[in-house]
Amino acid sequence: MRIAVDAMGTDARPVPDVAGAVLAARETGDHMLLVGDETRIRAELAKHPSEGLKLEVIPAREEVLMTDKPSQVLKNKPESSLHVGINLVKNGQADAFVTMGNTGATHAIATLGILRRIPGVKRPALAIIYPVSGRPVAFLDMGANADSKADWLEQFAIMGSLYAEIELQNHSPRVATLSNGEEEGKGNQLVREAQERIAGTGLNYIGHIEPKEILQAKADVVVFDGFLGNVFLKTFEATLSYFGGIVRQELTAGNVLAKLGALLVRPAFQRVRHRIDPDEFGGALLLGVNGVVVIGHGSGSARAVASAIKQARRAVEGNTVRRIRERLATLTPHAADNDD
Amino acid sequence: MRIAVDAMGTDARPVPDVAGAVLAARETGDHMLLVGDETRIRAELAKHPSEGLKLEVIPAREEVLMTDKPSQVLKNKPESSLHVGINLVKNGQADAFVTMGNTGATHAIATLGILRRIPGVKRPALAIIYPVSGRPVAFLDMGANADSKADWLEQFAIMGSLYAEIELQNHSPRVATLSNGEEEGKGNQLVREAQERIAGTGLNYIGHIEPKEILQAKADVVVFDGFLGNVFLKTFEATLSYFGGIVRQELTAGNVLAKLGALLVRPAFQRVRHRIDPDEFGGALLLGVNGVVVIGHGSGSARAVASAIKQARRAVEGNTVRRIRERLATLTPHAADNDD
Repeated sequence: MRIAVDAMGTDARPVPDVAGAVLAARETGDHMLLVGDETRIRAELAKHPSEGLKLEVIPAREEVLMTDKPSQVLKNKPESSLHVGINLVKNGQADAFVTMGNTGATHAIATLGILRRIPGVKRPALAIIYPVSGRPVAFLDMGANADSKADWLEQFAIMGSLYAEIELQNHSPRVATLSNGEEEGKGNQLVREAQERIAGTGLNYIGHIEPKEILQAKADVVVFDGFLGNVFLKTFEATLSYFGGIVRQELTAGNVLAKLGALLVRPAFQRVRHRIDPDEFGGALLLGVNGVVVIGHGSGSARAVASAIKQARRAVEGNTVRRIRERLATLTPHAADNDD
Repeated sequence: MRIAVDAMGTDARPVPDVAGAVLAARETGDHMLLVGDETRIRAELAKHPSEGLKLEVIPAREEVLMTDKPSQVLKNKPESSLHVGINLVKNGQADAFVTMGNTGATHAIATLGILRRIPGVKRPALAIIYPVSGRPVAFLDMGANADSKADWLEQFAIMGSLYAEIELQNHSPRVATLSNGEEEGKGNQLVREAQERIAGTGLNYIGHIEPKEILQAKADVVVFDGFLGNVFLKTFEATLSYFGGIVRQELTAGNVLAKLGALLVRPAFQRVRHRIDPDEFGGALLLGVNGVVVIGHGSGSARAVASAIKQARRAVEGNTVRRIRERLATLTPHAADNDD
């Protein structure tokens, strides 16, 4: 397999990007195409033993900053590492593209500029796999679209279910919508309409669930609009940090026995942190475009880059794009309608 | 002060409701009007020493269940403890009403049935005061309206700022809107429109903030639509429980030293739990109706009932209703427009 990796993606570019690609090349044997500033990439590569690894540098003259506006990048940086990398996928020179860079710009270039939507897809969605209660759960949309319509959420449910089949090796993943309660009449207009539509898809749809149930892994796929999904995940992560901070504060303010206790429980805390470590779980897969594109966190480590690369290769091996194309083609006319 | 307390509110009615009212009567010297099933209330009252306390029973023949639909209660249970209690406020026989019961029904009876909206108020909002990073923060709307418009959010900001002035004794509370990022172009259409409007109100508005910053207490008032607010709080609380569960699990699975450590840190954990204990912080104040109405959690303890009662009396002492009426009367025409 050949995977194009944006070497200019992370905040600490190209250090973790190159190190992560080397790591993934070693672990998978795959061919990595490192896209970006050739001189800087070669300087990084020189720091790693790479004998026997398939590593290639593909020059790209421009790089995209996190602060760049997607529409500006799309038009004004045609030689960016994002453009070059995504074009490798389009032209069949790479099986997938992975970046830790600007999410909006990657989405815009892939969707509007180069790969385009799969026929029948109204809007692509960003899907992540995140472990809760020891089980991987697929979440989408994580922010490809700030405002969504009910029929887009319906398609997110279809694409997310398919992605969960591939990633979780689960033939009938339980699909749910996040709401503020399961009772009739709960939820806003969007989720109530989406509920009706998804109930008609034939998916294993279990209806609305609350945050508590998400964290009990009562669903394998959780569907929300990109704004809510983004706020949900950010609230979850911020609360974990918040609670960690309170605990630390209480422990350092404690007496000698409390501090001794803190020392003794530290290994358990480290196991806890590891269980929820996003570095292990890759990035977001842009579902609904004609190619595999994974976008990770800009703050990601080399390990996070390697995880995102492995996520991309699983999506390629699972024939995600072809299967979404086929699934949408078999659907009822309204779900596959691509009129807007 | 005279406070009407729904004795038929909690899941364990009337036990915590009556005990909480007795507690509040003892702590404040206020006159409590216990509304509900007279026989059951008197049986509960007999369990508490109440000499010198001002406790009165106001009979109400019907009680509202958590599963009752608001519109049904509004029409078909005219003698419910909610109707009777809110009527006491309307008729000037009580200064406030407190219930731990059905939120939707209380909202409907207060807003549509009995107290009505303050002139100029488009929609009432549920406001809570919740401690983060050691500071009380006001959050609204927590679910009075599932779908909101930007001009409603603008009014929530105005009412919430006023409530924070009273509750937090802060003359210029920092008001913020929750979004998925502060950068230009972030947020969905609703919060982007609300941002523009709130920026024109003259409030101390600091713009959009993310969940992380909410938990760092960077704002004194956080404004969102009721659906998002409800999901935000539920995600926060669910994540705390989730993390507590993971820690417990890791500690019990640990070796002897880890368990010893867990024993030693337990007092610190208990302090942590106390710091985020919702029993201490009352309920939600229904801002925007012609009277003080506080709605607490159905699972609340006697302590939670007493906290909700004290929250109601602070709102009365702070002249919240009069001040909202005055504030809205001085506003620009579009904010005070009550046309829908």
